[in-house]
Amino acid sequence: MQPLPGFRDFFPTPLPLRDAWSADLRQHIFAAWRATARRYGFREYDGPPLEPVELYTIKSGDEIVQQLFNFVDKGERHVSLRPEMTPTVARMVATTERAYKKPIKWFSIPQLFRYEKQQKGRLREHFQLNADIFGESDVAADAEIIALLIDSLRALGLGADDFVVRLSSRQAWQRFFSGRGGDESKAAAFYQVVDKLERERPEVSAGRLEELGIRLEDVQAFIQASLPEPELKAVLDNLSARGLEGFVKVDYGVIRGLAYYTGIVFEAFDPKGEFRAIAGGGRYDQLIKLVSSGKVDLPGLGFGMGDVVLAELMKSRGKVPAFTGGIDVFVVIEDETLRGPSLKLVQVLREAGRGVEFPLTATKADKQIKRALELGALKTVRMEASPDGPLGVRIRDLTTREERVVSMDAAVAAVPGR
Amino acid sequence: MQPLPGFRDFFPTPLPLRDAWSADLRQHIFAAWRATARRYGFREYDGPPLEPVELYTIKSGDEIVQQLFNFVDKGERHVSLRPEMTPTVARMVATTERAYKKPIKWFSIPQLFRYEKQQKGRLREHFQLNADIFGESDVAADAEIIALLIDSLRALGLGADDFVVRLSSRQAWQRFFSGRGGDESKAAAFYQVVDKLERERPEVSAGRLEELGIRLEDVQAFIQASLPEPELKAVLDNLSARGLEGFVKVDYGVIRGLAYYTGIVFEAFDPKGEFRAIAGGGRYDQLIKLVSSGKVDLPGLGFGMGDVVLAELMKSRGKVPAFTGGIDVFVVIEDETLRGPSLKLVQVLREAGRGVEFPLTATKADKQIKRALELGALKTVRMEASPDGPLGVRIRDLTTREERVVSMDAAVAAVPGR
Repeated sequence: MQPLPGFRDFFPTPLPLRDAWSADLRQHIFAAWRATARRYGFREYDGPPLEPVELYTIKSGDEIVQQLFNFVDKGERHVSLRPEMTPTVARMVATTERAYKKPIKWFSIPQLFRYEKQQKGRLREHFQLNADIFGESDVAADAEIIALLIDSLRALGLGADDFVVRLSSRQAWQRFFSGRGGDESKAAAFYQVVDKLERERPEVSAGRLEELGIRLEDVQAFIQASLPEPELKAVLDNLSARGLEGFVKVDYGVIRGLAYYTGIVFEAFDPKGEFRAIAGGGRYDQLIKLVSSGKVDLPGLGFGMGDVVLAELMKSRGKVPAFTGGIDVFVVIEDETLRGPSLKLVQVLREAGRGVEFPLTATKADKQIKRALELGALKTVRMEASPDGPLGVRIRDLTTREERVVSMDAAVAAVPGR
Repeated sequence: MQPLPGFRDFFPTPLPLRDAWSADLRQHIFAAWRATARRYGFREYDGPPLEPVELYTIKSGDEIVQQLFNFVDKGERHVSLRPEMTPTVARMVATTERAYKKPIKWFSIPQLFRYEKQQKGRLREHFQLNADIFGESDVAADAEIIALLIDSLRALGLGADDFVVRLSSRQAWQRFFSGRGGDESKAAAFYQVVDKLERERPEVSAGRLEELGIRLEDVQAFIQASLPEPELKAVLDNLSARGLEGFVKVDYGVIRGLAYYTGIVFEAFDPKGEFRAIAGGGRYDQLIKLVSSGKVDLPGLGFGMGDVVLAELMKSRGKVPAFTGGIDVFVVIEDETLRGPSLKLVQVLREAGRGVEFPLTATKADKQIKRALELGALKTVRMEASPDGPLGVRIRDLTTREERVVSMDAAVAAVPGR
């Protein structure tokens, strides 16, 4: 009678348990993501939640399999619940890009899965906003996608005190590495050490760097200074023109673990460092070529933003709205002989787009009013018989307690939606 | 480089292949479902796409497993991608119902899975609108859920010529069966024969019925007459009061295959019979008790409506809207020295909720106008330098071709959203 370990049920308000996940908060986040992506001209797509395992091993090597939620299906196929969206979108774009004008700007809100050792509070699924741009190699695209990331968070009420986007550059690190005599074939290993710098003991990092011919002090000094290299300067100027400079800072401590990034990379964090990364992404100009076995060559870049850390951050910053029953008006039925016309009134109001609730069966009037208030209704309406002439509709404003009686035809106009 | 057999990619408009699935159509359907359910006071929930296999065998017996997309996970758990939503919602409601006022009215839009023998065009996943009511045994709840089904289809532009809800009753069939001396313990077997009547040869059905002591002619006559029994009469009266009587008819040919239905059952079809069922559901008053091992006793009822047949029906009836790029305004950048202020204009318009596109890099003006038209933009705007004084914003209406120049501050008001 429980979901599988690491999987979530999402409940409507009021939450049945304090630590239950809220379906209303999830919808609130998805709606903000979707609205922001559309304002930016991104188009929604989706792929299957189950994919062939090779789609992931092509990109990340065989060692990725141990983290996958993979299995052999009844047709003996090696398949996996998707751990990330980028391989799927790369496949979709590589096979159909001729049908689309460039740049291709796409987004999706997939549920992603991984099979990890069970730890308290560690989930095996989460949702992500995934946004990508294909077919534009200029850093103007990097600025556009970072602006989308920033505005996706701002749409949820978060501001410059709540998050910062740390900008970095694989090229800057590449220049650093080769400028100090680093062996090009070992660049990926070098990025790995830099990526782990914040989590590993300095002696361990220093040892690994020594093997690559690099001094830890030089790496630390480069991160400490974090001087904007030309490609980052262009992004910062672009974001400044939009008025978004207050949400970003150059920080070479960010490098991103994945091997496939080729250009600017970035991560969003809360400035206090209380939470894990809110979002992360970067440029991966070789991925489409890799996934298409060299047939298609399109630059690409994108980011992913998960729902779990974001929901935690919103809660800690008081940015979760009070969710109500989503009802505009409650149709009170006091006189059961008027149930027929009351049902008609319910229908007319719903057809006009109002959220309407009413008692399915005979119910005491005070209980109905209580229910209307619980559901967050703005008004109650009730059919009213008059000795002669047609039925009237009595409308009561639940805030001002004002009442008035209108005809059935005038009822819709008298009960506005939210 | 293909999705797994039976799984769909969803592409943005313009579709890259004629038989590609449209992400825009999917969003259009989901938005209509969600808006209609909310108007009816239904609250959204979701559960995991992966559940323990027992959740399904408890309800449907072990034979269900052969249709499941099931496997053994890395923790040796017998799990399945969800084939239907009812067991999940029954679990969620059974464990938390005390926190919610009755009736509980919930909906969800899950993706569902089954592992079937591969056939052309036969999918292994689809999406469904699932709506359920718990805690109300009166047929008023049946009428409410059928009204929701009807209005969910009407919200997509479908009318009484496009679909009809066939109403039936397990109780009516139960009375028919026991009234003719049927053995109560064999009622489920009898319902199975009735369910297969339209698909099996009459001799086969007659033989099976004979074993149960029932004559095929009597069954056929009962279906032919389809006289509304009292519980159906009450539903029809309720729907008539709402003005929805034109969308339903009594038809005892419908009985629903699943064992767990206990009351009124229904299916929605296109009247021409070209397509499989659009939706189906009914009352299942014993399910919560079953799933909770007797701990919770709550009546329930609900329906599921899939996206695949619905999309086919909408296409055949010309009810698929023309999807555009979803852009309200295209910011033209002709003079690259004005890129900075143009980016500011993009940001101001997006922050005001407008869908905005612009050229990421220097692009010929005529190519920009072409792109604006392709994206379905209503207007173009461009920053304009004036010899003295501040920059102006030139707004062009792409339909009327009228132009005017306003200040930056007045630009938002001059470019309304859709």
